[in-house]
Order: sequence, then C-alpha cells, then structure tokens
Amino acid sequence: MDPADFRRHGHALVEWIADYLANAERYPVLPKVQPGDVRRMLPAEAPERGESFESTIADFERVLVPALTHWNHPGFFGYFAITASGPGVLAEFLSAALNQQAMLWRTSPAATELEEVSLGWLRSLMGLPDSFEGVIYDTASISTLHALAAAREQAIPRVRELGMAGRSDVGPMRVYCSEHAHSSVDKAVLLLGLGHRGLRKIPVDDEFRMQPSALADAIREDREAGITPLAVVATVGTTSTTSLDPVRPISDICQREGLWLHVDAAYAGVTAIIPEYRGRFDGWQDADSIVVNPHKWLFTPFDLSAFYCRRMDIVRRTFSLVPDYLVSAEGSRGVHNLMDTGVQLGRRFRSLKLWMVLRHFGADGIRTAIAEHIRLAQLFSSWVDADPDFERLAPVPFSVVCFRAKPRSGVPEAELDAFNERLLEAVNGTGEVFLSHTRLNGMFVLRLAVGHLRTTEQHVARAWGLLRQDITSH
Amino acid sequence: MDPADFRRHGHALVEWIADYLANAERYPVLPKVQPGDVRRMLPAEAPERGESFESTIADFERVLVPALTHWNHPGFFGYFAITASGPGVLAEFLSAALNQQAMLWRTSPAATELEEVSLGWLRSLMGLPDSFEGVIYDTASISTLHALAAAREQAIPRVRELGMAGRSDVGPMRVYCSEHAHSSVDKAVLLLGLGHRGLRKIPVDDEFRMQPSALADAIREDREAGITPLAVVATVGTTSTTSLDPVRPISDICQREGLWLHVDAAYAGVTAIIPEYRGRFDGWQDADSIVVNPHKWLFTPFDLSAFYCRRMDIVRRTFSLVPDYLVSAEGSRGVHNLMDTGVQLGRRFRSLKLWMVLRHFGADGIRTAIAEHIRLAQLFSSWVDADPDFERLAPVPFSVVCFRAKPRSGVPEAELDAFNERLLEAVNGTGEVFLSHTRLNGMFVLRLAVGHLRTTEQHVARAWGLLRQDITSH
Repeated sequence: MDPADFRRHGHALVEWIADYLANAERYPVLPKVQPGDVRRMLPAEAPERGESFESTIADFERVLVPALTHWNHPGFFGYFAITASGPGVLAEFLSAALNQQAMLWRTSPAATELEEVSLGWLRSLMGLPDSFEGVIYDTASISTLHALAAAREQAIPRVRELGMAGRSDVGPMRVYCSEHAHSSVDKAVLLLGLGHRGLRKIPVDDEFRMQPSALADAIREDREAGITPLAVVATVGTTSTTSLDPVRPISDICQREGLWLHVDAAYAGVTAIIPEYRGRFDGWQDADSIVVNPHKWLFTPFDLSAFYCRRMDIVRRTFSLVPDYLVSAEGSRGVHNLMDTGVQLGRRFRSLKLWMVLRHFGADGIRTAIAEHIRLAQLFSSWVDADPDFERLAPVPFSVVCFRAKPRSGVPEAELDAFNERLLEAVNGTGEVFLSHTRLNGMFVLRLAVGHLRTTEQHVARAWGLLRQDITSH
Repeated sequence: MDPADFRRHGHALVEWIADYLANAERYPVLPKVQPGDVRRMLPAEAPERGESFESTIADFERVLVPALTHWNHPGFFGYFAITASGPGVLAEFLSAALNQQAMLWRTSPAATELEEVSLGWLRSLMGLPDSFEGVIYDTASISTLHALAAAREQAIPRVRELGMAGRSDVGPMRVYCSEHAHSSVDKAVLLLGLGHRGLRKIPVDDEFRMQPSALADAIREDREAGITPLAVVATVGTTSTTSLDPVRPISDICQREGLWLHVDAAYAGVTAIIPEYRGRFDGWQDADSIVVNPHKWLFTPFDLSAFYCRRMDIVRRTFSLVPDYLVSAEGSRGVHNLMDTGVQLGRRFRSLKLWMVLRHFGADGIRTAIAEHIRLAQLFSSWVDADPDFERLAPVPFSVVCFRAKPRSGVPEAELDAFNERLLEAVNGTGEVFLSHTRLNGMFVLRLAVGHLRTTEQHVARAWGLLRQDITSH
C-alpha cells in the first residue's frame, strides 16, 4: 500500500472509528446473527489477485459489523464492561505501525523502558511498594500462570531441571483458591502438570469471600495427608460477584506456611487508585505477586495485563533461556531483557497505550471515572433493593450487581430460574442493553456490570426500565 | 476524548504513520541510546491532571522515537525481518477500536468466524488438508506450548485430573527436537513440568538438519531406559540458519512410535504458498500440529501466530473449562467458543488483520513478495560465495544467510570471532543496516535475514557494500 493510499484509507478509517465510538448505540449490543452466518457470507478461498482496500472495507461493513458484539455500546453490562478509549485506540494504531518486538532491550529500548515507567506509574497510583517489579502480559490467564509457575519453581527442588514426573522425592501438591476464583487458576494448574486435584477450592462465607479458617484447615489437612501446599490465589473482585477474599488474614497464613501468595485483582485492582478503596486491598503489599488488568477497567483496549511480583528473580529463573542468536551485550550490563520474564519470546509495544491512557486521564480523571461507575452500580442496586419484585443476591462492593426477579405475583421457586432466563433473553433481545448471568447457590442470577466509559445514569436507568417493564408485562 | 478531538488526533497520526512507514530509512535502524535514557527522560509518577494528547505525542517524538529499534527500516536484517504492512496496520487500528473479546462465539461472532475463515484461507494456500483445524494465538511460543500440552494429555492417562507429581504410574518423559530448535520448545517443556531433562536435543547433520536415525536411536534408547517418549518437534526453517528438519522420515518415526509430531514452521511455513517450495514440507500433512506465524513473513503486524491441529479435540480436552458465568446457549449448538482452545480466556480480534492482508496482497502478491526476498538472500549469498574474504557457513534454503569474514590478509582462526564481532558492530553502527548474529559449530556467525516488504536489492547491496568496505579498510 503506497503512502498516498495509506493516507486515504487511514483518514477514512479515522472518520469511521470516530463515528462508531460516538454512536455505538445505533447498533444492537448483541448482534442478530446465527452461528455460521459470517462464514457463509465469505468466500472459502483467499483471492488469487489482490483486492482494493475499499472492497475489503465494504465487506467489513456488510458482513462483519452486523456480527460484532458491541463492547463499545454504553448499554453493555455483561461480564466486565470495558472501554477502548480514544487515547488507547490511537496508541494501538501507533503501536501496530511501529511493530516493535520487545524481546530484548536492544530490539526496542523504548518499549522495554516505557513498560517499566508506565507500570511504575500504575504501581504508585495503587499504593504498592517499589519492591514489586512489573511486567506486561497479554491476559490475566498468562499472569496467573507465571505466578503459579514461579511458586512451583520455589517449592520443588530442581523442578526446572528434573520436572515432576517419575520422581519419588516429589509428592502431590496443592494450590488453593476460593470456590469463586477465576477459571484461569484451574487452567494454570492443569498446564503446570499439577492436575485438577492439585487445586483445592476453599469454601466461601455468605458474602462469597474465602474463609481464612477453612484455608488454614485445608492446608493442615493436606500436610497431614502428605500433600505439599504450594500457593494460594486470593481474589479481590471475583468474576461472579466481585467479592473480596480477605487478603490480610490469607497473607498471614501464607507467610506462616511459607506459601506463595498471588492476588488476582484483574478487575478491581484499579480501584486502589481511589484512596477510600485502598484499605480493601490491605495485605496485598505482602503478596508475592499481583495481577491487575488495565484492559478491564482502566480504559485501555484489550490486551494489557499488568503483573507485579516481589520475586521476579524466581520468575526469571523459571524461564530464562538465552539462545546464541539472542545473546546481547546489554544483557550483561544489568539491562532487563523482557523475554527473560516469561514464556512468550515476542512482545508487543503494549506499554504505549497504558502510558497514553494514564497521561490523557491523569490520576484524577481515572478516580472520577471509576467512582462514577461504582456510583451507578450502587444506584442500580438501590433500585433492586427497593423493588418488591426483585432481590439482590450479593453485596455490591464495586460496579457489579447480582440480582434476580422474584415477582410478587408469585412464581414458584422451582420456576424462578426459567423465569429469569426468559427475562434476560427478553431484555437482551431489545438490543438496547446486554446483561450476562451467573449462578449463585444454585440460582440463575442476572448480573449487571458497569465499566464502560460512555455509560451514564441514563443507560443504567434504561436497563432497569426494561427489566421492570418486562416483568410487569408478564 | 470527544469525537472531534479523536478525529483531529487520528488524522494527525495517519499523516505521521504514513510518513514514518514510507521514510523509516531516515532513522538509524538501531537507536543511539543507552540503557536508562528513556526512563530518565520521563517523570517517575503519573500526572495528577490529564494532559493534552499533543503533549503526549510531543514526548513520544522527543523521548520514544529516538529509542525505537526500527523494525520497519528496509535495512533491518536482524533475527527475522518482519513487516507492518499498510492493510495490517489499518486492520489493527480498527481492531483496537472494536475491542472485541472473542472468548465466546456470542461475545464476537465476527471475530470467532473470521478466525475460522481466514485460517482456512491460509491453510488452503499452504496446501494443508481441511483435517487441520486452526486457531490464532499470540506467539509461536504459545502455539508450541499448546501442542506439547496436548501431547502430554494424549500420552499420560488422567494427567488433567491427577497431574504428574507423586504418581508411581508415571515415569520420566521425553520430548525430542533438534539442537537447532527454538528456545520456545525448551520453555514449553519447563512450563509443562517435564523438566529440562525431559527435552532431548537430537544431533544435526552438516546442514543443521535433525538426523532421523539419531532420533530413532534416541527414542529406542529412552524406551529401554524406562523413559516414555511423548512428542517430537520438527522445525522447517530453524532460527539460526533456517535449516529444514526432514519432516517425512521424522513423521514416519512418529507414526511408528505413536508420538505427537509438532512442526515448527513459524518462519518458513508461508513459503508453502509457493508451489515450488511446498515439496520441502512433505510430511507435515501427517503431523498432529503445525505453527506458522503470519507476523513473521506474511506482512501482518505482530502478534498473530496460526496454530493448526488435527487433534484439536485433545487441545480442548486439555483446557476446556466453562464456569457458570460463561455458559452460553450457543455452546450446546455445535458452536466453537475460542476460549475452549487454549489457556488464554481473552482473545483479540486478530483475524481481521490476516483477512485484510490476504485480501490486499492476494495469493499472487504474497508469492511474488516472498519469492523476491528469497531471491535477494540468494543474491547476497552468491556475493559471499564469490568473495575470497568471506565464507558462507550454512546453506540458504530461504531468506537468511549465515556467513563470516575470513580475510585473505590472514586473521588467525582464534581471532576470527572477535574480528567478526567488531565488523558487525561497525556495520550496525552506521545505522544504515542491522544484522544479527548466531553461533555455529562454535564460531561467531553473521546473519542477514531478508523479510521486510520495503527491502530492495539496493538495501541488500548496501549491506554488502558496508561489510566489504569495513573489511578492506582494516
């Protein structure tokens, strides 16, 4: 593509994107397509001759746009709502063009050092001490995987050299998390060869928080049974209800037992930027590792997961391998080569978007935006609480509300799941909002998550209005 | 950022990027910065108040641009040269704005199905059968990790449930690759808990190709010693020399022995799009899995690794976990949810750039561009061969030349490494080109890799001219 064409198509895309981001509301949040629709509308083979960019964009609009789920829609209340903010999108545009491969310092001094600087900014905003070194991974799944790999490295003698199979000196091992921890903990344990039995899920209290006493009991029980405890994953902001495991007592147990503590604060960690919320994280400063995802609630386009670790030396020991073709002079001068800190050799210039987002909003702007999302969720929660046709099913510590309809008109308990499933389908079917669901204590639960930057009180009120309207029309 | 500001900054960036991509030659390939320079020029804390995008871009130009390694420079001949092509960069811009999270079909039908379609196009272009299902990961490191995780799942009974530690029924295991395989194989083996001893590196012949007879011997020897063979990684296009392991006989051994065969064609796989080159891959159609990286030599901005697998059911069995909050109706209607195919839950809309790149170039355009890179490397290789002051140290099957200076004037063998290190430093110091190095048979070897779309004969000639000039001036 010659420069003139790049300019022409680039400018057209800027217009398209500006319009899209400002007017995502014109689309239904969930697309009205059936499985296979996109595939059927596209040719089965690549073209033999190159095609014009105009024709590709025309097909993008014709085939793909109607099949997008609009995460940019201010009525997106599913899972965790996220935002591709303007500065973040522009940073990604730049990052794609620069095409940095930050495996070694020398292959991108800018990306290597900006990663350190921007993660330092975020660490400081969240009140974490400098003893936490940061590195950017793509996802929390990969961050947690690295945390548990380091825990395994620390706990099992010579595991890097000898592995775990066929060793009479290595017995079964256990990682602990709450019943409400994210599935990425399960996946990490599977990948690391600890087996699903190597993960023990600790019961939660009635607010879905890990019970420290149950954790302590489990560890004792396991030790007595000859199982070696390895690590604990505490979650601040679980995926279903955003419940907070009590980090302080869990951290005390880990210190006493000599276990690696990993704190999964992928969603809620950024709220530590707000002084009033920081206390909820107490204990995480003593953790071995923490994951916080700016691509969740820090207005940064996906993907960017920030991994902080007080024992990055162990992470490096777990993975560092320098083949001949990657030996660099700087490696011996105290420079960090990012490829040493993880399983992936290649690394995108992700720090650019974090840096641009932090500068654009400033600490103050971030606090304001996050606090507003929390306010909106509390407001929605108060409507649920005040309405005799609905019930709230979990506390609302952050910006997610778990609730269900329980109409006064009397729907038998056994039918409430189906009733709420239908309600969810009806409300989502309007295209104006999208809520997702979970299960709590066996019940089908609706879940409203506020987190998109363009979501206002009007959108939350509209979600509530649709729910109310549907239930009263039944 | 309001729409008007987004437009203004977006249009300015289009101009900046168009100019940058067309004129990357104005920058030195390797930046003239020292470790710490970037960090020292940036504040230690995030700003309290938001700053203008102009001031951020001004700092980007002042602090970061001088610290970029210019992978877009047509004189970039290091590692594997790559290209952020125009359509690829524009696709990434769009992808960042759309901010799709393709974990479930319903969270992005477009991204889910376009991944299938675009990987189908690439598979067909490379002549691979439909029995290979594709999935996009970020890097070849992650692709190879998934291949070996699936191999472990297949080989060890109940490994998903029980893991490997403390089991008397699971003995030591072994993965095989050549001495020249990529370090990602080592990292995968470490992560999977097989230990570094769980990887056996098979000797190569004088053209750096795995010796199938040595592989067969190693497997037999291991079985006799009570070690269970698990998988073989064959590389087509190794990282140092781009040598080709003989896939056909290796595949035959794997079939006979019941071992998982993973083919690492991350760099060279795309050459199978050229009919005359396809024969070199013979045997890969019988592999269990293959990795090909469009972000290497298919003009697609980093990151996009294509993983093809004939046993994706085993990959799914290894990782699939569906928590309550991600249960979707489509999951039961034969729809593939991409989160089931790997360790990462979140997935970017990466297929968009592959689709746009394939449409922009067409099969014909891709063949032409790749063939030209191979021609340029062969040309450079012929200059090396014809020059009595240089020697070539490996065959040149693709677009990488391994060579060194060995001046007629007589530099003692013991000093040739230092001589070539200085030569490399001097040539790279001009800023006009960047070559990297490796070691072969104990020797320090220069490495010229052609792969950037804007690299022409003139750039290759300039690299040669600088090398010649420096050596004659000594």
